[in-house]
Amino acid sequence: MRYEPITPEILKKLQAAVGPKNVTTDPDKMQPYSHDEVTDPAYHHMPEAVVFAETAEQVAAVVQLANDYHFPVVPRGAGTGLACGAVPIYGGIVLSLEKMNRILEINEDALYAVVEPGVRTSDLQDAAEAKGLFYAGDPCSGDSCFIGGNIATNAGGNRAVKYGTTRHQVYDVEIVNPTGRIVQLGARLQKQSTGYCLEQLVIGSEGTLGIITKATVKLLPKPKYALDLLAVFDSPEQAIGAVGAILKQGIVPTCVEYMDNITIRSVEKYLHEKLQGSDSGNYLIVEVEGIHDDDLDDKAVALDELCTQHGASSVLVADHNKIWQARKAFAEAVRAESLIVSKEDVVVPVDQEPLLLAEILRLAGKYGLITRIASHAGDGNIHLNILKPDDTPYEDWARRVEQNQQELYAFIYAHGGRLSGEHGIGFKRKHLMEEFTNPDELAMMKAIKKALDPNNILNPGKIFDIE
Amino acid sequence: MRYEPITPEILKKLQAAVGPKNVTTDPDKMQPYSHDEVTDPAYHHMPEAVVFAETAEQVAAVVQLANDYHFPVVPRGAGTGLACGAVPIYGGIVLSLEKMNRILEINEDALYAVVEPGVRTSDLQDAAEAKGLFYAGDPCSGDSCFIGGNIATNAGGNRAVKYGTTRHQVYDVEIVNPTGRIVQLGARLQKQSTGYCLEQLVIGSEGTLGIITKATVKLLPKPKYALDLLAVFDSPEQAIGAVGAILKQGIVPTCVEYMDNITIRSVEKYLHEKLQGSDSGNYLIVEVEGIHDDDLDDKAVALDELCTQHGASSVLVADHNKIWQARKAFAEAVRAESLIVSKEDVVVPVDQEPLLLAEILRLAGKYGLITRIASHAGDGNIHLNILKPDDTPYEDWARRVEQNQQELYAFIYAHGGRLSGEHGIGFKRKHLMEEFTNPDELAMMKAIKKALDPNNILNPGKIFDIE
Repeated sequence: MRYEPITPEILKKLQAAVGPKNVTTDPDKMQPYSHDEVTDPAYHHMPEAVVFAETAEQVAAVVQLANDYHFPVVPRGAGTGLACGAVPIYGGIVLSLEKMNRILEINEDALYAVVEPGVRTSDLQDAAEAKGLFYAGDPCSGDSCFIGGNIATNAGGNRAVKYGTTRHQVYDVEIVNPTGRIVQLGARLQKQSTGYCLEQLVIGSEGTLGIITKATVKLLPKPKYALDLLAVFDSPEQAIGAVGAILKQGIVPTCVEYMDNITIRSVEKYLHEKLQGSDSGNYLIVEVEGIHDDDLDDKAVALDELCTQHGASSVLVADHNKIWQARKAFAEAVRAESLIVSKEDVVVPVDQEPLLLAEILRLAGKYGLITRIASHAGDGNIHLNILKPDDTPYEDWARRVEQNQQELYAFIYAHGGRLSGEHGIGFKRKHLMEEFTNPDELAMMKAIKKALDPNNILNPGKIFDIE
Repeated sequence: MRYEPITPEILKKLQAAVGPKNVTTDPDKMQPYSHDEVTDPAYHHMPEAVVFAETAEQVAAVVQLANDYHFPVVPRGAGTGLACGAVPIYGGIVLSLEKMNRILEINEDALYAVVEPGVRTSDLQDAAEAKGLFYAGDPCSGDSCFIGGNIATNAGGNRAVKYGTTRHQVYDVEIVNPTGRIVQLGARLQKQSTGYCLEQLVIGSEGTLGIITKATVKLLPKPKYALDLLAVFDSPEQAIGAVGAILKQGIVPTCVEYMDNITIRSVEKYLHEKLQGSDSGNYLIVEVEGIHDDDLDDKAVALDELCTQHGASSVLVADHNKIWQARKAFAEAVRAESLIVSKEDVVVPVDQEPLLLAEILRLAGKYGLITRIASHAGDGNIHLNILKPDDTPYEDWARRVEQNQQELYAFIYAHGGRLSGEHGIGFKRKHLMEEFTNPDELAMMKAIKKALDPNNILNPGKIFDIE
């Protein structure tokens, strides 16, 4: 992929477009924009300039310049990605949306919010809650990630079983499309059949088909009652084996989360806090909501019985803050153990999840891998973290990780699964995307990218490469 | 748009592809394939041949021939459309999927069904119910329409408030794409972030981006308890005015349906059956589901109070079969009154619906129109039927209908609405689509169509025209 360098002439035009204070080429200032949350330096790449936009019109002007001069534009939210989606692998500019961080409207009557892309997800949640409402999207990184990035990657998180992923929270998006036009896709409607569903095409396209400059998202009446059940199982197989039965009950839980024993102990150490059943237990955390207290009790009793039938050694009502602090500390606890970690985000149909877990454990044994596993089990989405021990040479570890990946993905695709449940493909999984995706499906994706971005300037080299 | 005629050579190749019994050029046999449910002959067009496919491979062979010889392929389900989406306006062949009518799998453990496109929607509902499960899609034409057509138009219906439209029921679709490749889009996953969401792009694309040859749809545990509340209001304004309050309660109803008084009386006459409050009442039908009896009672009490507060003159638990027979008889009752009817399917944000209804009534007065109105009020989707009186000349009536349309759509787009809530654009609303859609959005749709269907052979002239 060949692009033109960012020349002084282009810099001058960028400054004219967004104001001089919003363009930097200072290496120290650009360094944080050379990577996302992937710590391995092999996945870092410096931009030629970082540009901060404050309006959709500025974004449009920048994208028009990129088309005129042929340089890459890599949109970036909070940089909390795990797939190198915001890393400028072909150079060009990183276009940060962090200054577009206003909540423009919260409408209590019609139950929606209008937000700019740089709004922190937890700020949106808090603003909704302050009005007795509820934004259902809830990625684990909610305290730091932005809603724009959530939309661009179709972020999942902890309430997807009941409420769906980010794509299900969005009414419409305003984007700057790859040719620099500001266009609203979708509408604040419960339904429509009025042409192609472009908003869902753009959601999850990781900044390759448009830069999100505004979005209207759904709010809900705040659930009146909720509780978290913690079911502790002696074996991973028992825990994961109970998930399908829980989902078939007709009680729709908000989530069914899984953590294996070694991961629980890793979190316990990180938090310096004793966790229930951490000696040998494996967790299912099941959150349920109700319209009144009785309703909630009924659900809790039914779930208790069900988990016990499926082998839980104990089932208790958990302290909400404590159990979610533990669940959400997963990524940081892993990082505290090792800075070099391979993170898999695989997803299969929920009924195939027990087989997948068994295969993950088998392969970890085969390749001598040290794993930490948590899972959005109710979604079939397993986060497999593979740690590099300090005393293992990088090359040796990386080779075994890659062998593991090849076997694991072949298994996953044979069982109807996909590479990523919620992190996205970005640059990190692009080669696997090319390898495992049906060629006709991939050809359709590439045809769409070429049609909408004829100069291939918007986040090039992500998800796949255009020949 | 210029295409090659269906020559004897092409007919021979079509016969070779699907078998001689599956190709007809007999005008009597082709006549039913020249129209959908739109009775106005101005919207009918004879195909040059009708072809019946029995397998995806046959569909692929036909589409490949169409690319080789450059003739239009118009896919068709049950022909129950209301937008002329299955009418071969540029000639070529109608490709009927009616012989691909098998339910291939119902999986009770993993809660899904695999169906061919020609499965009648009610047959899928019944097959699910026979196993204690539930298919949530429920268009009013469920007894006659096919699941393939439901997917192609993103059909809505009577449970969309709680369960969404057809697009929310679909895990994956197998399509024959416009270049004749069989490809599965989507997967049987609760979520994924693995490249572009092509399944949602194809769903609702009205056969212009792919011919659906198989689909995996979601099944749910059958709701244990349900009831229908009928709230009768003295005025349309009061009835529609209560909808927003109902949706804000945190009780998610399955549906909130509206019928105005003159429509209730039209249905009463058609069914020869006395309907509750038909002297002067306007209906809201609110269906709620519960996990046990108490739960349902609580919801009913809360809704009763709410409707009464908003001016309902009576609220009662309705006989499910009777009230839904009345609601679903709407289209046939209208047809019994007049064969020449203009059907609008407009949709606005739910909070804008009272304004829309007022505008509809104002415009009907202004243009002297005879209307019958039912609405999926919980979705903001109003079905406005405009009847041609026998003694009014067609031209005069059609002119006023068109003037009404222009004013109505300008109002709708100014209020964030769209042309169609669930019927689709097809051929019938194409000119309005071109007129009212944002040009940049329309350009993106056309670019995608051109990229995926370079020869423009798949259902050309629907939704929009390719220059």
